[in-house]
Amino acid sequence: MQDKLTLMIPGPTPVPETVLKAMGRHPIGHRSGEFQAVVQRTTEQLRWLHQTSNDVLVITGSGTAAMEAGIINTLSRGDKVVCGDNGKFGERWVKVAKAYGLDVEVIKAEWGQPLDPNAFRNALEADTEKAIRAVILTHSETSTGVINDLETISAHVRAHGTALTIADCVTSLGATNVPMDSWGLDVVASGSQKGYMMPPGLSFVAMSERAWKAYERSDLPKFYLDLGPYRKTAAKNSNPFTPAVNLYFALEAALEMMQTEGMESIFNRHARHRAAAQAGMKAMGLPLYAADGYGSPAITAVAPDGIDAEQLRKAVKDRFDILLAGGQDHLKGQVFRIGHLGFVCDRDVLTAVAAIESTLHSLNLGKTKMGDGLAAAAAALNS
Amino acid sequence: MQDKLTLMIPGPTPVPETVLKAMGRHPIGHRSGEFQAVVQRTTEQLRWLHQTSNDVLVITGSGTAAMEAGIINTLSRGDKVVCGDNGKFGERWVKVAKAYGLDVEVIKAEWGQPLDPNAFRNALEADTEKAIRAVILTHSETSTGVINDLETISAHVRAHGTALTIADCVTSLGATNVPMDSWGLDVVASGSQKGYMMPPGLSFVAMSERAWKAYERSDLPKFYLDLGPYRKTAAKNSNPFTPAVNLYFALEAALEMMQTEGMESIFNRHARHRAAAQAGMKAMGLPLYAADGYGSPAITAVAPDGIDAEQLRKAVKDRFDILLAGGQDHLKGQVFRIGHLGFVCDRDVLTAVAAIESTLHSLNLGKTKMGDGLAAAAAALNS
Repeated sequence: MQDKLTLMIPGPTPVPETVLKAMGRHPIGHRSGEFQAVVQRTTEQLRWLHQTSNDVLVITGSGTAAMEAGIINTLSRGDKVVCGDNGKFGERWVKVAKAYGLDVEVIKAEWGQPLDPNAFRNALEADTEKAIRAVILTHSETSTGVINDLETISAHVRAHGTALTIADCVTSLGATNVPMDSWGLDVVASGSQKGYMMPPGLSFVAMSERAWKAYERSDLPKFYLDLGPYRKTAAKNSNPFTPAVNLYFALEAALEMMQTEGMESIFNRHARHRAAAQAGMKAMGLPLYAADGYGSPAITAVAPDGIDAEQLRKAVKDRFDILLAGGQDHLKGQVFRIGHLGFVCDRDVLTAVAAIESTLHSLNLGKTKMGDGLAAAAAALNS
Repeated sequence: MQDKLTLMIPGPTPVPETVLKAMGRHPIGHRSGEFQAVVQRTTEQLRWLHQTSNDVLVITGSGTAAMEAGIINTLSRGDKVVCGDNGKFGERWVKVAKAYGLDVEVIKAEWGQPLDPNAFRNALEADTEKAIRAVILTHSETSTGVINDLETISAHVRAHGTALTIADCVTSLGATNVPMDSWGLDVVASGSQKGYMMPPGLSFVAMSERAWKAYERSDLPKFYLDLGPYRKTAAKNSNPFTPAVNLYFALEAALEMMQTEGMESIFNRHARHRAAAQAGMKAMGLPLYAADGYGSPAITAVAPDGIDAEQLRKAVKDRFDILLAGGQDHLKGQVFRIGHLGFVCDRDVLTAVAAIESTLHSLNLGKTKMGDGLAAAAAALNS
């Protein structure tokens, strides 16, 4: 039904009217005092969200651009890096590192499983010559709905003493606790169409002082993604290139909404929605794809054993105007994913579970009694 | 006065309500059939605007990102290139080329003067070994309001036989004729906040078949700006990374408006506005900064001899809510620039001239009789 679509994908996520309206203003000059005020305010808000006193820089681009910027601004050709890979985004950072001629050691886990922090500790402890310059990993692996133990892995990196932690927090930031400073993260990359409750188009990269030291020796070629000019202009509440001015308006409004809700409340909401989505799926007899205890607070991947996930997903869209995400790459048809990231309330999660359950039964694919899923989800939301 | 600002800067340019409203919709999934339809339609529209049958790819980023993409996707480390430099953007492409280790020969002209096509012909004819891989230049130099003779320079490049023409058409495309195919341009880069009548955030890079051949041998490292995946996904009406979905909505609406107006009519409008701005300034005794006959159809730079350009510019903003652009770098205070690019009608130009004239006289800086400027501008608009 026209204009009735509800997004329950891991991005773009739903956008509040307040944010859409802020974005819909006429643009202003990006070198004007009025725009500088927006940059100043959003910079403070971004520091709040990242729980950091570091620079948080804004790039017009996707989350991949921010993550690439983090990598190419802190490393040099031939540098040894350790990349975690347990999904499509882990794979992507390996590709980026290789594209720039880095010497990449990959620590893998099966899709659906978390990265093993001990594997990182072992690699870092074995590196007595301190050749490893960075550990690159994904916090919330969007393709599999797995959350990796970034805190522990980052602690191992700190113990190493030389390496930086470069973290893809694209679907974790704003959904769960990512205290950049207290975890000692060096680069945190994220994107606007996720926990930020904004349309896509802006991405964010926070850089620690250690990361800036590494920037000084970095020799990888870059221009648009060279973070030096971003830092220099950010100090004057400006940008090196014309930024997406209207998305900045949206950013200011969205972060204001997040500050009003409060960080703890946001994280609790995401945890509650994860619990409800997981409980609902389990009660319908639909197995979760992520290993127990490692489900992402942003997204629940479901592997509906013996059921065509694409058929189910399409039927949910056609009948209920709810867009779920499909499986990526080899998971296509085997997995569907429920996004519960950003501007999502209890009603949305309850509705998604009910729509999935109803569709399952209408396709004669129900494995448990109609209503079991909804009951379990409701109970999880109430608890 | 709040919400009364009129932008007469070379970007962001004014945005029609139709475009703002299209942008203000709730985002949809970027992998959905509905979004594929938007990509398909805008791709056709972009080909129309570029007068080409080539690929026109959409990047979430600024015009600089598009231009950098054009350079790094067609060249290899150590390649010899010739860069035209007669302003801030010419300078920028020299910097980009050097950042990637290209061997750069710079052909300069003074700021305010056009590039000399013969200088390019001479350099290309002297290159009997065909070492020059590309000629990189800016069509409309935004910093100085000069339009370079891209058509003639491109013809010299074609005569060379090997080199590509990589053109920054950021403030020329949509303002004046840039027939990519008939001029034999290989890379055309542009940005949304210019002739496109859109907010900033999207940029565009069109690539000829010759450019794609060069892509195959290009060895410069890239990932977010690697155009190969953009081409591959564009063939399926999709994108390699999450694009700025809402800006795509705006793009579709803006290009529809442009198609309705018609290309000739758009170009004539820009030419008329250039004539009016130039006539108005001259009649007020304010010298134009660009050499005679080389004024850009997008922007008129004025060097108000003996008058503080920043003082005038600020007074026009304070009194009339019209934002003019200042001079960049060493031109700050010496030059102001009137943007007449994109969604600008005769009323806007007439008003800008009147506001500048009125401000000039109120500051007791008038050099001619009050009304002379307006009369000249009106006459130019009528002719």
